[in-house]
Amino acid sequence: MKINKKMLIGLHLGNGYGSQSGAWRMPGVDPMSYTSFDARVKQAQAAERGKFQFLFLPDGPGAVMTDIETEAPAFNLDVMMTLAAVARETEYIGLVATGSTTFNEPFNLARQFKALDVMSQGRAGWNAITSSGEDVAANYGRRIPSSEDRYGRAHETIQLIQSLWGSWGKDAWIHNQKTGQFANKDQILPINFQGKYVSSRGPLYIPPSEQGQPIIFHAGGSPNAHELAGRFANVVIGAAFTIEDAKAQRNIFRASAKSYGRDPDEIKYIPGLMTTIAKNRRTALDRRIKLGGDSLIQRLGYLQQMLGVALDPSRINEPISKVQLDVARPSRYDPRSANALKIAKEGWSLRDILAHGVIDYHPVIVGPGVEAADHMQAWFEAGAADGFWISPDVNADGIDAFVNEVVPILQERGLFHTEYEGKTLRENLGVTDQYGIDPRV
Amino acid sequence: MKINKKMLIGLHLGNGYGSQSGAWRMPGVDPMSYTSFDARVKQAQAAERGKFQFLFLPDGPGAVMTDIETEAPAFNLDVMMTLAAVARETEYIGLVATGSTTFNEPFNLARQFKALDVMSQGRAGWNAITSSGEDVAANYGRRIPSSEDRYGRAHETIQLIQSLWGSWGKDAWIHNQKTGQFANKDQILPINFQGKYVSSRGPLYIPPSEQGQPIIFHAGGSPNAHELAGRFANVVIGAAFTIEDAKAQRNIFRASAKSYGRDPDEIKYIPGLMTTIAKNRRTALDRRIKLGGDSLIQRLGYLQQMLGVALDPSRINEPISKVQLDVARPSRYDPRSANALKIAKEGWSLRDILAHGVIDYHPVIVGPGVEAADHMQAWFEAGAADGFWISPDVNADGIDAFVNEVVPILQERGLFHTEYEGKTLRENLGVTDQYGIDPRV
Ligand SMILES: Cc1cc2nc3c(=O)[nH]c(=O)nc-3n(C[C@H](O)[C@H](O)[C@H](O)COP(=O)(O)O)c2cc1C
Ligand SMILES: Cc1cc2nc3c(=O)[nH]c(=O)nc-3n(C[C@H](O)[C@H](O)[C@H](O)COP(=O)(O)O)c2cc1C
Repeated sequence: MKINKKMLIGLHLGNGYGSQSGAWRMPGVDPMSYTSFDARVKQAQAAERGKFQFLFLPDGPGAVMTDIETEAPAFNLDVMMTLAAVARETEYIGLVATGSTTFNEPFNLARQFKALDVMSQGRAGWNAITSSGEDVAANYGRRIPSSEDRYGRAHETIQLIQSLWGSWGKDAWIHNQKTGQFANKDQILPINFQGKYVSSRGPLYIPPSEQGQPIIFHAGGSPNAHELAGRFANVVIGAAFTIEDAKAQRNIFRASAKSYGRDPDEIKYIPGLMTTIAKNRRTALDRRIKLGGDSLIQRLGYLQQMLGVALDPSRINEPISKVQLDVARPSRYDPRSANALKIAKEGWSLRDILAHGVIDYHPVIVGPGVEAADHMQAWFEAGAADGFWISPDVNADGIDAFVNEVVPILQERGLFHTEYEGKTLRENLGVTDQYGIDPRV
Repeated sequence: MKINKKMLIGLHLGNGYGSQSGAWRMPGVDPMSYTSFDARVKQAQAAERGKFQFLFLPDGPGAVMTDIETEAPAFNLDVMMTLAAVARETEYIGLVATGSTTFNEPFNLARQFKALDVMSQGRAGWNAITSSGEDVAANYGRRIPSSEDRYGRAHETIQLIQSLWGSWGKDAWIHNQKTGQFANKDQILPINFQGKYVSSRGPLYIPPSEQGQPIIFHAGGSPNAHELAGRFANVVIGAAFTIEDAKAQRNIFRASAKSYGRDPDEIKYIPGLMTTIAKNRRTALDRRIKLGGDSLIQRLGYLQQMLGVALDPSRINEPISKVQLDVARPSRYDPRSANALKIAKEGWSLRDILAHGVIDYHPVIVGPGVEAADHMQAWFEAGAADGFWISPDVNADGIDAFVNEVVPILQERGLFHTEYEGKTLRENLGVTDQYGIDPRV
């Protein structure tokens, strides 16, 4: 059934250091990567070497972290400026940034994403999210609107922006020096979009890119998010801890797309995967222990809750006793608990259990490349994922580790492409080009 | 008196073609420069070769021009994305973009300009304007606010943004891998800015750049503009047709700065200059005639009004008769009229008079480099300008022409620097660094 279909892979390009909060202090890491565009470009190039389909940049400029004394902010300096830098120094990889429909003027979002699409020769994607959290809203001097208002505005904003993107027809831009015709006026139309939340006259002043216009991504899990994505998105950036959960989520998004009259295959569900890739499990665990520092052990209290047994910090280097393992039960409140118990039963010390990343934001591979490949294959073949977005522990060498150790295995197994299908993001994701204004709007 | 003081020069980086509407059709011009970031980068590099202090990008995304059939839009694709591309491929030149205080979320402006400042190692400037014109407002689904509201919001927005820029103290960012200290929390402060128009909690999550924070520019001529600039700006982008007018404007801005307790020398007044540089006047005029095409002759009707005499289109290749020149009087409604009459009296044909650019947006030099140098020296030494922003007719070769033919003369005369003073825009403009939150806010 899955024959010929390949998985999609994206790279989480975050704060320049990597997904583990200790990444900035590791040997070999430039401690100024947070503000270094060189570092970001290099990381993007590493992902392109691995034929990743896209870079994914989350965004949500909330409070500067309370632990700024020891940890870097999770944010990218500015997602659009970062991708502008990357665009000119890469050739194939897709450039996907998060842009809030709540805290941006739609016209400004439209022109920046279209400019990125043009400067990258058709590689831009927009992760359209509504933003949540009072700490983000406070930076804009506001309270966070109700879910109804956020998503009401989001539906209108995406329609408005896609209309602006399509306000020049495919062949509108003539630029014929001999005849002196710059553009065909009949193919450049105002959009006169008049919504309840947002409005714009248009047209935008930017011609189509090599893929027509940017692709819509979405990231979110609420019923409103399912609906927004089902209507507009080609890719969903997801978060799921188990195959069952991922499968259920994927099916919800596919059903939502169908309810909007779309082919379910037009929406790709891409859950996250965090990686510490090393030559064997032990080396990988030691790397995580070094990365985690003291903060690793501070999570012991939470591990107790996940397993339902008391854990003694003074025995951090010992495995959980047989007696305790017999009574341990995975907490029903945390979907990561079953995995934590499974690892505990393998006989690892408390420290090593934590070093497996059992309390991280996504499933975590701490081990050799083949373990990541197995995980990805299992999820992909179970219909739980159309691909994965990868968050390496430390970007400086973690991207290369994935590219060198995981990608070749996936390629050998026929699960991942060996060459880019084309130069645009739409070609590389298998999404059709989009020109002009969608007649359904 | 002026000894040791040098003039400042900026380049108007517009739609990628140049300031004359026919530029896109000229031989040697890439007709796709409008969407080509390569073209923009090349133009920026040409200006840097000429040691220009800064690039200036206007912005005001209004209607797509009604003459789009034959003319390129005047806008830059996106000013921030353009400068992001330029930042990584230049080393010294300042990067100044226009950003509307009316049609942007202040927090978004703050982070993009700060990101540009960081990615360019301290070369960013923000031309803070309020936007005018219903056609711009319509793209944002609104009417243009009253001048009072626009400038009320502008004062608050600049204060808010400067506070966000300064929300990390000079030494706040530690990034010491050995001690594990990422930042000094005590030097990172929320701004809690609460205005009538705009508010933000902050802090921003971006450390200072090599110049602390971006420089404020302003462009505008109304009394409200004088006040805004006097309070915040280090550079005023101006428009003046005569030395007298420029001098008067410059003095108004200086007086306004003084009224805010500032040293008048902290505000530089930079009027515009348009150029067609060629080996002699005749060659330059022929270039303008080719550039202007039919639209040149269509301006004859307006030239009549400027001179107060009837002009016969069938005699386009003849000079104005002695009889007519004797009765001609410069129109009091157009400050360009005296210059037009002066040129008419030199005996040029009607076509050549128009080809001198007598009806353009700024003073125009159509001739050899020494004429531009003379103009600039006269204005500079009369106290009418601290420098100039240059709009070449065609960017593809017009920047090089200025750099090769005008810059060396200015340097020989001791009017223009021969090397960049430093690497930051503040160093190159002679403006002091700015760290932390201005205590006057
Ligand atoms: C995998 C994933 C990634 C997300 N990335 C972002 C992001 O980059 N920026 C953001 O503001 N919200 C992000 N979100 C939050 C969602 O957009 C959404 O706000 C959240 O799921 C809460 O749902 P609600 O907004 O419908 O209430 C992400 C959510 C998920 C599941
Ligand atoms: C030389 C010059 C350059 C200007 N550049 C811009 C610009 O790039 N974008 C813009 O919206 N307005 C620009 N303006 C317009 C002014 O900001 C201002 O709106 C105009 O002078 C009208 O004044 P008012 O807004 O105070 O009514 C420019 C004005 C001048 C004189």
